[in-house]
Amino acid sequence: PDFVPLTRGLAVPQGISKASFLSAVHHLKALLGTENVELNDTEIKNGWYMEHPNTHDMMPLLHTEEFLASAVVYPGSVQDVQLTVKWANKHLIPLHPISIGRNLGYGGAAPRVRGSVTLDLGRRMNKILDINAEDYTCLVEPGVTFYALYEELQRRGLGDKMWIDTPDLGGGSVIGNTLDRGVGYTPYGDHWAMHSGLEVVLPGPEANLVRTGMGGLDGGNTWQVFPYGFGPSSDGIFSQSNFGIVTKMGMALMPNPGGYESFMYTFPRESDLAPLIDIIRPLRISNILENVAQLRHGLQTLSVKGHPRTKFYKGSGPVPENVWRKELQDTATGECAWVYYGMSYGPAHIRKYKLDVIHSEFLRIPGAKKIDPSTLPADEYFWSRDRIASGTPDFEELLWVNWMPNGAHIAFSPVSPIRGPDATKLYELAKKRHDEAGIDLMPAFCVGLREMHLIVEIVFDSEDEGMRARAEKCLRDMIDDAAALGYGEYRTHLALMDQVAGTYNWNDGALMKMNNTLKDALDPNGILAPGRCGIWPARYRNRGWEL
Amino acid sequence: PDFVPLTRGLAVPQGISKASFLSAVHHLKALLGTENVELNDTEIKNGWYMEHPNTHDMMPLLHTEEFLASAVVYPGSVQDVQLTVKWANKHLIPLHPISIGRNLGYGGAAPRVRGSVTLDLGRRMNKILDINAEDYTCLVEPGVTFYALYEELQRRGLGDKMWIDTPDLGGGSVIGNTLDRGVGYTPYGDHWAMHSGLEVVLPGPEANLVRTGMGGLDGGNTWQVFPYGFGPSSDGIFSQSNFGIVTKMGMALMPNPGGYESFMYTFPRESDLAPLIDIIRPLRISNILENVAQLRHGLQTLSVKGHPRTKFYKGSGPVPENVWRKELQDTATGECAWVYYGMSYGPAHIRKYKLDVIHSEFLRIPGAKKIDPSTLPADEYFWSRDRIASGTPDFEELLWVNWMPNGAHIAFSPVSPIRGPDATKLYELAKKRHDEAGIDLMPAFCVGLREMHLIVEIVFDSEDEGMRARAEKCLRDMIDDAAALGYGEYRTHLALMDQVAGTYNWNDGALMKMNNTLKDALDPNGILAPGRCGIWPARYRNRGWEL
Ligand SMILES: Cc1cc2nc3c(=O)[nH]c(=O)nc-3n(C[C@H](O)[C@H](O)[C@H](O)COP(=O)(O)OP(=O)(O)OC[C@H]3O[C@@H](n4cnc5c(N)ncnc54)[C@H](O)[C@@H]3O)c2cc1C
Ligand SMILES: Cc1cc2nc3c(=O)[nH]c(=O)nc-3n(C[C@H](O)[C@H](O)[C@H](O)COP(=O)(O)OP(=O)(O)OC[C@H]3O[C@@H](n4cnc5c(N)ncnc54)[C@H](O)[C@@H]3O)c2cc1C
Repeated sequence: PDFVPLTRGLAVPQGISKASFLSAVHHLKALLGTENVELNDTEIKNGWYMEHPNTHDMMPLLHTEEFLASAVVYPGSVQDVQLTVKWANKHLIPLHPISIGRNLGYGGAAPRVRGSVTLDLGRRMNKILDINAEDYTCLVEPGVTFYALYEELQRRGLGDKMWIDTPDLGGGSVIGNTLDRGVGYTPYGDHWAMHSGLEVVLPGPEANLVRTGMGGLDGGNTWQVFPYGFGPSSDGIFSQSNFGIVTKMGMALMPNPGGYESFMYTFPRESDLAPLIDIIRPLRISNILENVAQLRHGLQTLSVKGHPRTKFYKGSGPVPENVWRKELQDTATGECAWVYYGMSYGPAHIRKYKLDVIHSEFLRIPGAKKIDPSTLPADEYFWSRDRIASGTPDFEELLWVNWMPNGAHIAFSPVSPIRGPDATKLYELAKKRHDEAGIDLMPAFCVGLREMHLIVEIVFDSEDEGMRARAEKCLRDMIDDAAALGYGEYRTHLALMDQVAGTYNWNDGALMKMNNTLKDALDPNGILAPGRCGIWPARYRNRGWEL
Repeated sequence: PDFVPLTRGLAVPQGISKASFLSAVHHLKALLGTENVELNDTEIKNGWYMEHPNTHDMMPLLHTEEFLASAVVYPGSVQDVQLTVKWANKHLIPLHPISIGRNLGYGGAAPRVRGSVTLDLGRRMNKILDINAEDYTCLVEPGVTFYALYEELQRRGLGDKMWIDTPDLGGGSVIGNTLDRGVGYTPYGDHWAMHSGLEVVLPGPEANLVRTGMGGLDGGNTWQVFPYGFGPSSDGIFSQSNFGIVTKMGMALMPNPGGYESFMYTFPRESDLAPLIDIIRPLRISNILENVAQLRHGLQTLSVKGHPRTKFYKGSGPVPENVWRKELQDTATGECAWVYYGMSYGPAHIRKYKLDVIHSEFLRIPGAKKIDPSTLPADEYFWSRDRIASGTPDFEELLWVNWMPNGAHIAFSPVSPIRGPDATKLYELAKKRHDEAGIDLMPAFCVGLREMHLIVEIVFDSEDEGMRARAEKCLRDMIDDAAALGYGEYRTHLALMDQVAGTYNWNDGALMKMNNTLKDALDPNGILAPGRCGIWPARYRNRGWEL
């Protein structure tokens, strides 16, 4: 359903009466304009990817009203953001900043603390402030999506000269994705490493405005070209945190490499995973494999065709191996357990050198097959990966969400060395927990430079309370199992942040103690995104807010 | 002279009586062992690069006793460091951590605050804790030098498989250089970007021990392979700062690229600089030029031969152009204004592709010449650059310090876009100030990826008070001139830190206000390296300590 009435009514923030809250909101309207502050007191509007809600998670793991905004604010300028921060400090109201709020799989637009006021930065602060065609850089506001940046490059006739790097879906923002340390699939895929300079509104009562890196220079011209500046390099503490609200960010653009070529290999057995990962490691570290490629399980290659799972299997529990293997037989990849999607860059003769090395290495796996792209129809998923790996935003990837009715998904994303035995251990623990939960396992290994992220997306029916509970249990079990083996997540969903943060507990939780120290220094009133990444301000700490 | 008696006696730290200080030192000896705590109360021992002093700057810009340690401590373990931090908190004694203390040009081993107790971490904590030949990473303690790491790789028979990246001199430490965000000359030259994970003793009274990144996981195996971890990425705040004492650091090693080849081009006119820089920019950003190469002025190519300047010119003031031009005629480079030293990596046919592009681009400068390496004798400086750019530590670079008697040097290191007009502006302002000061200008442009560091090393006679004063004035003028044009330094000498930090004053010094907030939160008693990078703890702030 598109509109659902609120069952619990207005989510008044903790520690303030409804009347005081309403009067504070009234006050904020006077400061920012009535049309820029919306109370969320009647219903939940669901929408879909292109028209996603900004008050909650459209793919809820818990009850939708658990992580719900009380109001949404649309600042039109840095000054508006500062006014809102001062206001929040005065009334002790939690603020939740989003750039776009399409952080699907990790909480979407939802705040961690019920009743937070969402600061929807992207709606009005969405300008591309600069594209520098000499330095291959840009400077963007929170609302600039990968699509918008891509289109602006084309509009300026720069599309042939420089590329953007996009995650699998292009509708998120450059800033929001980068701050959550998201990943794309060109050689510029490590977004955090590619940014240069932030402008940040600090959450303290003065709402100080800081520029990091070379942005500290008055009239400087190196803010987007040199990331470090002089003195402590503080950018990192604003990623995956609740220490500041980012209002501008610089980002590198990739020079057109002078040619590119996607390739796809299939591997027949699940047990090919370990030897293949060991083959990949040296090729990736030496940059013969040049991008964050994906090594996907066969079942995901089936699900990304966009059909409901019931088309293939009507039973309960995971789709049996013989079923998905049979279904794959008639597809472009043929029957297989794993598919590797990669891209080679540069002029043809340079690519050939690299592709030849890759070919002979990959064929060391018995039964490995290279699929000739020229045999593939234009609507084959391969071409979506081809677009993404060459910097063209896409959203075909959304299709696997159709696997379940009311399809929602949530990610388990542990980091591991690029080593066969690690891949096996992670795969097996995920398999065990998925089997127990009766959920289909669709893992993809995204190979960074010296590590890989395993991304397991659980697709669930968001209207099926029982399945949501099974998905949650499966996730929590996997997080604990992984931690026991020494693996931690690189990023997580709102509902799992406390648990994941709790696994980073070396030396009696020393890291969290330091995070708390920084939080209390920068946000003494604890107004900014309480609980994000497991960091609670003093006002909330150890008072039962953890999940 | 090797030994100079102290004229001002023991440098007792501010705010504590001599008797209390001596008793505190006595106490520290009891904690760490008498042999691991040395009072510095009688004389200054000078030494040279290989046996450098750890109590002061062996290349002093101001009077040697200005930046002087009162004592030196040699911790043997993390626990020793923690004991020392607790001790310093108890007695309010400033601590100055060094890894090796060979930070020449930026202050050497000297503390910013006279009377600090130097924590010489490298003397006893100098183990290579791990070299991972599968992941191409290492984990080191503060005392591991580039030489030591290089030699250990050779010893283990891994030298052909993986390279280190070294700055121009190999005697510094991997940790100290990286924390100061130093630079080397292979494709892994951005040391800060290549590190992964820190272990840090925090300066508060509890001396908490934190591991950043994946080090937060108990029993994890990804600390050296994935730099970010979960939650805020805090590594950056420990670089160029006084927020913590680093006791371990992970670092990437570079896979042998399968071949390499140095090249050298000369350019006849000083005015070739601007068009050449504009040629370099797109080649560098697209990685055709693959390393942080150096574009050096002809005079530096002369000075690096290691002769005193008087060999070429007996007059005062800068060596006239006709003199150095004439002297260069008989050298390997021939008469020229600029020399570009670069390296191409990979198998021969891949190198050829890149070298051909570079050649035709560089030859667009009239009179540009490629020097054939096979014509160069084995002791030509070119081969030192060849070693460095292929990861072999060297110290031939020290030779230009012989330019002056009692040769010392200090750097002016502004960051700029890779653009001709910027290069010209920086060159001209440096020229003007050097001419005024009567000092030889020997600039080198080190081209990063989207920016370049101009490194101007002023070589001065450290026994000549007048020349020291002229050098200081020249530096301070250049810093101010550059700031007025929007350029800031990437790193600086102790004596200039307040001035440089003061140029990063956007929005009424917002960045420094934030740095101060972090400093006070992490180091409430203000014991760690007061004044480093212009950051003063509350106890010292605005009390006239700034220079
Ligand atoms: C099918 C599918 C595939 C996906 N594939 C990928 C992928 O390949 N790679 C990937 O990285 N992600 C992927 N995602 C996840 C998600 O879509 C993207 O990460 C997306 O780019 C999030 O962007 P956003 O702008 O909407 O984030 P937002 O929701 O705006 O931001 C994310 C979080 O960052 C913080 N934040 C945002 N802006 C600010 C700010 N200005 N100041 C302070 N804090 C801020 C907030 O806590 C916010 O919750 C995928 C999702 C789906 C559904
Ligand atoms: C001729 C010449 C050429 C040079 N060329 C280069 C070059 O190409 N690239 C380059 O980068 N540098 C260069 N330098 C400068 C210097 O030699 C190097 O940077 C050197 O590597 C410094 O290393 P170090 O270990 O001695 O530093 P240290 O003196 O040990 O450390 C530097 C500073 O970092 C901080 N620090 C060190 N260790 C710790 C710790 N464990 N915890 C907290 N803080 C710490 C301290 O404030 C210290 O003062 C050159 C110098 C000379 C003389």
